[in-house]
Amino acid sequence: MKNKATFYHAGCPVCIEAENMIVDTIDRERYEVEMVHLGLVPARIKESESFGVKSVPALVIDSQAFHINFGASIDDLKS
Amino acid sequence: MKNKATFYHAGCPVCIEAENMIVDTIDRERYEVEMVHLGLVPARIKESESFGVKSVPALVIDSQAFHINFGASIDDLKS
Repeated sequence: MKNKATFYHAGCPVCIEAENMIVDTIDRERYEVEMVHLGLVPARIKESESFGVKSVPALVIDSQAFHINFGASIDDLKS
Repeated sequence: MKNKATFYHAGCPVCIEAENMIVDTIDRERYEVEMVHLGLVPARIKESESFGVKSVPALVIDSQAFHINFGASIDDLKS
């Protein structure tokens, strides 16, 4: 079974740059990659927070959150 | 020719966690990965700064810097 990598973002310029470059490096043979736009799917904000995501863009690998640069805080996505 | 991905770190706990998980996701068929411990090789601090690295751990992909979480500032590695 493949490992899971989830990239949470909000469509901001920092997010898009990270998506284009970081996500492209991932080995798709070993990792199942999912991109989640929290601006469009706010219902998944809680899920991202459960992994410790505090800002986007963030990459969650096997339930471990890694924040990449800084685009927007999760709190700012709640409206 | 493979693309280049350089992971700059300083051996701190945040760095090691990022190294273990982020670097492992990279597709080695397409990316040549180099790990640089700036605490042990301070001569390469200037090079990292030339890519815009401000803190470690950071991953530089094709000359573009991505800061991953926060372990230590580059300034704190200069001594």
